[in-house]
Amino acid sequence: MESLKNHINNYLEISETTFSEIARFFSYQGKKKKEYFLREGEEFNKMFFIESGCVNISFIKDNGQEQTIDFAIENWWTSDFLSFSKSEKSRFSIRAIEDTSVIILTKDAKEKLLVEYPFMETYFRAVFEKAYAASQNRIKLLYELSREEAYFHFRDNFPEFIQRVPQYLIASFLGFTPEYLSEIRKKSIS
Amino acid sequence: MESLKNHINNYLEISETTFSEIARFFSYQGKKKKEYFLREGEEFNKMFFIESGCVNISFIKDNGQEQTIDFAIENWWTSDFLSFSKSEKSRFSIRAIEDTSVIILTKDAKEKLLVEYPFMETYFRAVFEKAYAASQNRIKLLYELSREEAYFHFRDNFPEFIQRVPQYLIASFLGFTPEYLSEIRKKSIS
Repeated sequence: MESLKNHINNYLEISETTFSEIARFFSYQGKKKKEYFLREGEEFNKMFFIESGCVNISFIKDNGQEQTIDFAIENWWTSDFLSFSKSEKSRFSIRAIEDTSVIILTKDAKEKLLVEYPFMETYFRAVFEKAYAASQNRIKLLYELSREEAYFHFRDNFPEFIQRVPQYLIASFLGFTPEYLSEIRKKSIS
Repeated sequence: MESLKNHINNYLEISETTFSEIARFFSYQGKKKKEYFLREGEEFNKMFFIESGCVNISFIKDNGQEQTIDFAIENWWTSDFLSFSKSEKSRFSIRAIEDTSVIILTKDAKEKLLVEYPFMETYFRAVFEKAYAASQNRIKLLYELSREEAYFHFRDNFPEFIQRVPQYLIASFLGFTPEYLSEIRKKSIS
């Protein structure tokens, strides 16, 4: 769980001893590429910290198509946060798009952790504050950019994703057909 | 600042005495309808808690039009959170759409408050966790709903906004022209 310890250390100092005390609140899960950590409609009360690998977060649209709304890679927390907070069934699926290992914090464990180790409030406040700021910025971009501009923005700001994520998922995330994405890419190369 | 005290009390117990101690970190500002709390491009290091009234959060698009991306009413914190965290110039304007009073927390004051009164981490963790969950859900809706469906969703889930917010701002928020919004409304009444 070295990666989580390092991530916490970005926001506050945590000693080896203290980290080994709180480690019992977390558990570990690994999945092969294309396996699901979570399927839409399942009971769900977990947050995932990506230790290695990459996942996509998606839901099934009325027309039956899978719509990817987000990705998460190393050092990101992900979940269906609304379902998590309300203890409702998940509205998203979370699937490994590479071999992926995650550190799990259940809702129960999170509540106990924060009561017993209140300094961890600082960590999660910082995590959620940063995530919310990024999300507000993303909403701005959804209003601001044409679909073509959105692709170039994504490519220039998150080059790692373009390398790692299959084309059809990037197309879904950007609201394209894979064919349209392929056209834009050709145009940008020529 | 009774409204802020009540809001904190939703997440943790805070005594009159303790609240009066932390009150010095906050300040107060009132604006008339249509006045700006913040203009895009200004230096900005504040978070606003809406005590009464309503604001819209917007930016100017390349074509010169004002694009509303969000609203905030009583008991919501609002800001340009990315600019706030990076101490950059604001990418949004925040404007009163009714006579509005806000409680202000500057970035400096926030940092001092959290060091001196670490229990307030719990409050802001909860505030940001909730805001992020709502934002993730909103991104889902932006992918899921047609523009017409988005109007009905907004009307059914936030009836108060429809009453309080001028039509042209609701249209902007939903990505409509005011004429298109008017058509949908007529259709839904008949």
